[in-house]
Amino acid sequence: MAKIIGASLPNIPWQDRPAGCSDVLWRYSENPIVPRDAVPCSNSIFNSAVVPFEGEFAGVFRVDDKRREMRIHSAHSKDGIHWDIDPEPFVLLNPQAEEVGPFRYGYDPRCCKIGDEYVVTWCNWFHGPTIGVATTQDFKTYYQKENAFLPFNRNGVMFPEKINGNYAMLSRPSDNGHTPFGDIFYSESPDLCYWGRHRYVMGTKGGWQSTKIGAGPIPIKTDEGWLLFYHGVLTSCNGFVYSFGACLLDLEKPWKVLYRTEPYLLSPQKPYEQIGDVPNVAFPCAALTDADTGRIAIYYGGADTVICMAFTKVDEVVDFIKKNSKV
Amino acid sequence: MAKIIGASLPNIPWQDRPAGCSDVLWRYSENPIVPRDAVPCSNSIFNSAVVPFEGEFAGVFRVDDKRREMRIHSAHSKDGIHWDIDPEPFVLLNPQAEEVGPFRYGYDPRCCKIGDEYVVTWCNWFHGPTIGVATTQDFKTYYQKENAFLPFNRNGVMFPEKINGNYAMLSRPSDNGHTPFGDIFYSESPDLCYWGRHRYVMGTKGGWQSTKIGAGPIPIKTDEGWLLFYHGVLTSCNGFVYSFGACLLDLEKPWKVLYRTEPYLLSPQKPYEQIGDVPNVAFPCAALTDADTGRIAIYYGGADTVICMAFTKVDEVVDFIKKNSKV
Amino acid sequence: MAKIIGASLPNIPWQDRPAGCSDVLWRYSENPIVPRDAVPCSNSIFNSAVVPFEGEFAGVFRVDDKRREMRIHSAHSKDGIHWDIDPEPFVLLNPQAEEVGPFRYGYDPRCCKIGDEYVVTWCNWFHGPTIGVATTQDFKTYYQKENAFLPFNRNGVMFPEKINGNYAMLSRPSDNGHTPFGDIFYSESPDLCYWGRHRYVMGTKGGWQSTKIGAGPIPIKTDEGWLLFYHGVLTSCNGFVYSFGACLLDLEKPWKVLYRTEPYLLSPQKPYEQIGDVPNVAFPCAALTDADTGRIAIYYGGADTVICMAFTKVDEVVDFIKKNSKV
Amino acid sequence: MAKIIGASLPNIPWQDRPAGCSDVLWRYSENPIVPRDAVPCSNSIFNSAVVPFEGEFAGVFRVDDKRREMRIHSAHSKDGIHWDIDPEPFVLLNPQAEEVGPFRYGYDPRCCKIGDEYVVTWCNWFHGPTIGVATTQDFKTYYQKENAFLPFNRNGVMFPEKINGNYAMLSRPSDNGHTPFGDIFYSESPDLCYWGRHRYVMGTKGGWQSTKIGAGPIPIKTDEGWLLFYHGVLTSCNGFVYSFGACLLDLEKPWKVLYRTEPYLLSPQKPYEQIGDVPNVAFPCAALTDADTGRIAIYYGGADTVICMAFTKVDEVVDFIKKNSKV
Amino acid sequence: MAKIIGASLPNIPWQDRPAGCSDVLWRYSENPIVPRDAVPCSNSIFNSAVVPFEGEFAGVFRVDDKRREMRIHSAHSKDGIHWDIDPEPFVLLNPQAEEVGPFRYGYDPRCCKIGDEYVVTWCNWFHGPTIGVATTQDFKTYYQKENAFLPFNRNGVMFPEKINGNYAMLSRPSDNGHTPFGDIFYSESPDLCYWGRHRYVMGTKGGWQSTKIGAGPIPIKTDEGWLLFYHGVLTSCNGFVYSFGACLLDLEKPWKVLYRTEPYLLSPQKPYEQIGDVPNVAFPCAALTDADTGRIAIYYGGADTVICMAFTKVDEVVDFIKKNSKV
Amino acid sequence: MAKIIGASLPNIPWQDRPAGCSDVLWRYSENPIVPRDAVPCSNSIFNSAVVPFEGEFAGVFRVDDKRREMRIHSAHSKDGIHWDIDPEPFVLLNPQAEEVGPFRYGYDPRCCKIGDEYVVTWCNWFHGPTIGVATTQDFKTYYQKENAFLPFNRNGVMFPEKINGNYAMLSRPSDNGHTPFGDIFYSESPDLCYWGRHRYVMGTKGGWQSTKIGAGPIPIKTDEGWLLFYHGVLTSCNGFVYSFGACLLDLEKPWKVLYRTEPYLLSPQKPYEQIGDVPNVAFPCAALTDADTGRIAIYYGGADTVICMAFTKVDEVVDFIKKNSKV
Repeated sequence: MAKIIGASLPNIPWQDRPAGCSDVLWRYSENPIVPRDAVPCSNSIFNSAVVPFEGEFAGVFRVDDKRREMRIHSAHSKDGIHWDIDPEPFVLLNPQAEEVGPFRYGYDPRCCKIGDEYVVTWCNWFHGPTIGVATTQDFKTYYQKENAFLPFNRNGVMFPEKINGNYAMLSRPSDNGHTPFGDIFYSESPDLCYWGRHRYVMGTKGGWQSTKIGAGPIPIKTDEGWLLFYHGVLTSCNGFVYSFGACLLDLEKPWKVLYRTEPYLLSPQKPYEQIGDVPNVAFPCAALTDADTGRIAIYYGGADTVICMAFTKVDEVVDFIKKNSKV
Repeated sequence: MAKIIGASLPNIPWQDRPAGCSDVLWRYSENPIVPRDAVPCSNSIFNSAVVPFEGEFAGVFRVDDKRREMRIHSAHSKDGIHWDIDPEPFVLLNPQAEEVGPFRYGYDPRCCKIGDEYVVTWCNWFHGPTIGVATTQDFKTYYQKENAFLPFNRNGVMFPEKINGNYAMLSRPSDNGHTPFGDIFYSESPDLCYWGRHRYVMGTKGGWQSTKIGAGPIPIKTDEGWLLFYHGVLTSCNGFVYSFGACLLDLEKPWKVLYRTEPYLLSPQKPYEQIGDVPNVAFPCAALTDADTGRIAIYYGGADTVICMAFTKVDEVVDFIKKNSKV
Repeated sequence: MAKIIGASLPNIPWQDRPAGCSDVLWRYSENPIVPRDAVPCSNSIFNSAVVPFEGEFAGVFRVDDKRREMRIHSAHSKDGIHWDIDPEPFVLLNPQAEEVGPFRYGYDPRCCKIGDEYVVTWCNWFHGPTIGVATTQDFKTYYQKENAFLPFNRNGVMFPEKINGNYAMLSRPSDNGHTPFGDIFYSESPDLCYWGRHRYVMGTKGGWQSTKIGAGPIPIKTDEGWLLFYHGVLTSCNGFVYSFGACLLDLEKPWKVLYRTEPYLLSPQKPYEQIGDVPNVAFPCAALTDADTGRIAIYYGGADTVICMAFTKVDEVVDFIKKNSKV
Repeated sequence: MAKIIGASLPNIPWQDRPAGCSDVLWRYSENPIVPRDAVPCSNSIFNSAVVPFEGEFAGVFRVDDKRREMRIHSAHSKDGIHWDIDPEPFVLLNPQAEEVGPFRYGYDPRCCKIGDEYVVTWCNWFHGPTIGVATTQDFKTYYQKENAFLPFNRNGVMFPEKINGNYAMLSRPSDNGHTPFGDIFYSESPDLCYWGRHRYVMGTKGGWQSTKIGAGPIPIKTDEGWLLFYHGVLTSCNGFVYSFGACLLDLEKPWKVLYRTEPYLLSPQKPYEQIGDVPNVAFPCAALTDADTGRIAIYYGGADTVICMAFTKVDEVVDFIKKNSKV
Repeated sequence: MAKIIGASLPNIPWQDRPAGCSDVLWRYSENPIVPRDAVPCSNSIFNSAVVPFEGEFAGVFRVDDKRREMRIHSAHSKDGIHWDIDPEPFVLLNPQAEEVGPFRYGYDPRCCKIGDEYVVTWCNWFHGPTIGVATTQDFKTYYQKENAFLPFNRNGVMFPEKINGNYAMLSRPSDNGHTPFGDIFYSESPDLCYWGRHRYVMGTKGGWQSTKIGAGPIPIKTDEGWLLFYHGVLTSCNGFVYSFGACLLDLEKPWKVLYRTEPYLLSPQKPYEQIGDVPNVAFPCAALTDADTGRIAIYYGGADTVICMAFTKVDEVVDFIKKNSKV
Repeated sequence: MAKIIGASLPNIPWQDRPAGCSDVLWRYSENPIVPRDAVPCSNSIFNSAVVPFEGEFAGVFRVDDKRREMRIHSAHSKDGIHWDIDPEPFVLLNPQAEEVGPFRYGYDPRCCKIGDEYVVTWCNWFHGPTIGVATTQDFKTYYQKENAFLPFNRNGVMFPEKINGNYAMLSRPSDNGHTPFGDIFYSESPDLCYWGRHRYVMGTKGGWQSTKIGAGPIPIKTDEGWLLFYHGVLTSCNGFVYSFGACLLDLEKPWKVLYRTEPYLLSPQKPYEQIGDVPNVAFPCAALTDADTGRIAIYYGGADTVICMAFTKVDEVVDFIKKNSKV
């Protein structure tokens, strides 16, 4: 039975599997937890990141405003479900502003605690999309680092501890449009400034993950490997469909894929996933875990419009991945 | 008044036209009849074929599983509305497996009784989509034949009797993507192995059928000609819209179009047709008929997600086709 | 406080801002006001124009029939909300029929009172889409003029008075498909026959208006400038999203943009805007105004399927435009 | 035997048909007459216009400089073959500079004498390509008029006399890229400012003119109709191929096509037409005519790089058009 | 040492390998053998088929006329190098003209002697490109058969004897444009009317054959297998490049590829291959063989403009294929 | 007068400017210096790098073989003009072969001496094109390093000395096809393993450099800044045209562009640049310099087929850049 290697989180938001449901992963009955207009200026709030913080929860949320500009806002919550979102976008302290800036857009953030710091990564404009990086300790002041890579890149997701003595990140090289391709790669950095030792992790496969894939929440350390939830995209007659599944990566060499779900875990089947600014999108960006109970709470964007939650347990999901794997 | 030339089917599933409705074809009030998750593994169930069988009904159903792989499952029903679907995909006995196989995907099946046999056709992978062919007598054992054509082809629909002494099939030559064009052709075969005598039937026209068209259910023999329901596709600003209409083909030379509906008969206007894995799709694949009453029950896919039904009567629909025809 | 320069319209359709709503523009609670099937032959009714007429209201409505052919129908209403639509398309008297005709399609009409006449403009087939022009005095007989421009053009919107002694029109040069670009231009004509003195007005900007823009209702004269509502299009992963905003144009030189909303005023967020033949469309084509109260009632199409209404007040919306402007 | 209705030009540049050649139109043996580097700054010189002027010849030449910016230069010649090209681009006097300008690019000029004036038209940037118009009397001072049309347009070609009391122009509505479509239209103007009465002239046909077509030199008045040389484009596996043919237009209603060559008259078959900045281009922009002898000298661009000449006689070419016509 | 299994042809056109040349296949020093204007109406003559006939040689030649319409002409030659081409296109006797015709275009013919007959195949319009089939005994009268396949198909190449008791043909399923993909398939027919038993032969590989491939001359029977020359296409920054290589197919099951050249045998490197209507094309359509000497004379089109020849010997080319093979 | 800051190279290959030529940069009269078939297996040899080596010259040459696979070969020359090319591709010693390899293709190499080592960079397959890096001291043994970046990238060009204590490289982020966009970026690395501190250098501009740009030879240090020759691409009707120009970069902050040529320095105008596997390409990859005389010898590929040379002098070219600059 797989176990989470990590901290306890007794106050993890949670809802038991509904009666009669046999899915390994189930939706929160009160979805969406954050509506599109939770902030006065907002057009939509989705694809956001959440971490435990000072006994409660903190987050960096994607907020597209009514100009349809993409911004990131700080957020706080006592229970991980009801959120106070800062009405103003976060501000980056950037000693290299002349070179790395200006800030034009930021979207699809992730947030990773490493040591005492939270490393926030997001899709950041730098003459095209690339991976922006910042650190914070209080979710008030954000110190921008160098962009991790040259354009074009999206879905940069840090590992929660150093690998081989280096910081480690997954990402998805892209182009400068609505990229119809995309594989996951792994890179390391000694200092969050210079990046190298690039490794190929995995690419598209059939069905729900046949157009492109990208890492979702920060990988979860288990005794069976790094548990990574990731989204996959299928191209239908009427555009893209974003679902998500999961895989297990080798603990020592996380670019080695041990198992990978052939079926998806969740696809857009509820109105809040099927209808909105981008129909048919379920896009996970964060997860909370409780090592004591094995509970996992996943945050995902619905239809590029709202924030939703889903739940699973580590032993069940790892078991499912291994039994339904095609690497 | 047009009459069906065929068998009686006293237990044809049926619902009268709703009060106040003047449409020539009307939806079943309990649509969809098969939900997307009717089988444990299923992501969606749609675009499926149905025939009378041993006093009840049998079907070959398109089931996309949670890998989003496209498979075909056998199904049975007492009333034609409530269905038991085999949880496992059908298996093809294929003496030419080395050459014709492997089976990679099968979708959008049709099923045609000819003599004592049921001929199942579907869109079959053979280095691209083409028309797969199999015969069955019991919907348990399926004997795969040679693929009818070279790739790329879709929507292969058999005639329910020999024409000019030959088997006859409609199909829609395509390309290897989400083909933005497509006309209906007619071909003959002496033996279900070799095909030839290819004839052009009809192509796209304005409006709802301006991008591509494809045959739907097995043609229905009437004293006015072969009654063929067919889908048509319009390209809107946000992708394809699949509606369906009907035409009458010459009994002797079925590649001669006698009449053809300028308006559609049904377009996606209900939530189960507008919302789902592929929004805005109504795609007919099968019809049941009762020669005694002239009743016709049509099975069509909704939004590439569920199975729906609609009803009409042969005299009314033939009358409508003739009065609203533009060939 | 901005004021409308124009006539009184005491019977303007109206509904106060809902309690708790702070938006500058709000939807009618009974939307849609015209359903898709309000006419026997109709597939959808949307993107339509309305004017005060003989103490009541007249309109020219876009009606797509069940062939999915695009036609324009006359309509009348006592209250501007409940409409009687002529079941037959309008007929154009066209002395140049051989050269300007035949009529193949007409869509997205606008209607502008100038002097005693109503000038109707629409997207008209002439070997591609261009701007058709006709005049009427009774909404029964329509006299077709020369097409204003060579193809390819859409969204031709007249000014309600002569500018510099000439008729004036806004339009959006296009191509012959689902044009992925489009800016607004201004042209003049001494006689509604010959057009020239073309001026560039404005182009796309970020966010909701980043793919193309087009003029909506007839510009509204205010003491702060011409108030123009206009639609803007964003390209998402799953197609176009049509929202609308507003700008103020110089009274003397209407090609000079004084202010322009950086956020949208309304984007597709209600089911009747999100679901339909073209998901995610809010497309304004007409407005009624009352100079006494400053009330503005906007008619817009929802999802290319139905007609909807929204309301605002001139002082508030002008104030909003000026405070949220980025030219 | 067709005759030119026009002036004598005894000094028309001329070379007899080569011995053994039976083509109705033949190349000048010393082609190209203007090399790509005839001006210090020039990258290429092609697609240029020529008229008789003060007993000699004047021209407006397309010169792409080494920035690959497109400019127009004045040119003079004693014999029509050897040219002095002004090393500086022409300058436009433009009283509407604020509105019509700035000049960003000008290319593919034509030049038409009407009365005492020369009207120069060209493809002019105005937020996209449209038809720029200027008049000159001395080929030193050019007075820019309003642009004839809204974008997007190319190949604006004036008639050398008023039609129905109006100025008249052929043009080719386009899009803002390397337009893969294009038909010829006709428009009139009372004053070179406002344009209207748009008529469709002709579109693409099979073979060499299957992708797009565009008017070439100023139409030549003959007793059989307006003789118009025009280019046509075929899309091969490796891009566009530009050839040219000819048609006869009705003298009174020049939008009526009387005859039109089914074969081309000249296609790119010589190295100076096959090799250069754009391989496989023969693009006519001007013609000189001598009514006394029926001689016609055509100027055409080769491979978007150099200027070439070809010759024909009016009676032979009109005879050829009529015998090889498919309207 | 591989040997041709076939007839003697003592008068095969031939030229020895040039001194200093070590290539396995070498060009004829007098290339091209047929210029583009060998027929009065011709724009270009290329991609043509040749067979021994009555002690001399006969051919069916692709002739694009000056309309750029694609036609096929009969041709005769005493030596296989100097050709008399019928100035008129061939005419098809077609008892099914109403259904199979009309003839709109025919191109890239092949010619195969089977028994006493010559079977001519070509790319034939039938609502898109497919494989036309005709038989002749005298190269004067051609009897058209049913089209072999539904559209879209190109490069239909017959085997010179029955396989498994059936006629056999290679072909390349395509789409209706300048198809950017294409693999070779094999099909059989008992009667030249109905076709089936479709088999996959081979697809694209890296480098020169990475975009699409297609069979060239009629396969040559050798004791090592069927020797098939085939073209391959690479997509460069400036369009397609057509080269050719060769493979060996199993004698019994010709869809089994035994060997296949990884390098090309000939790529467009001479001006008559690099410059013309379609730059960078070398496209083989026919070969003559002499079993006594092992000599092979290949006919190929240059730049879609002229006919060229190249030579090789069966033992050398088979040896080369086997040593440079990557299946 | 600008001066080169660097070594003497008395034996630099050289040819004086031809009489009558006033161009700042002139072609070698014996171009091409390396023909396409200089190696037995070669299809083409072009886009290659050259350095002084042990009193003579060494190079890493792009050799596409007859499979059209892209390989890199070592080469040596006594005079820099006549070259001995190793008939076998170079072999990389790669301690990370499992992760970084396998070698699938390598093209467009550059070679940079830093200290005692030569750093070779090239476009290297790693699940798409990225920048491969290797070091050599003898042009026999090459030690492969980590790839510098994630895919997709091309035209990686090292600086010949450390900048701010770090290795420095220019590159051009791309996509995985024939990328229709591309700007130049600058990155640093402390160790040739990890890369970061990414800076934007410059993007496309009008005319010859309007589609994409990329660094050419190793930047040349002068007292006026780093002299960088770079290619630019224009999209014509028939594909891409590759020309080259030059710019001056700040010595301390090489991502600051001081001057940049608005006209090109050389565009494809000679047959060996206009005709070949990719028509219309002049692509510089290397330069030799002599600080004593200011001579610069540039190596560039012609038509993706052959290697050519051109010459200039540092004072003249810097003067030209400054006088013809538009940053």
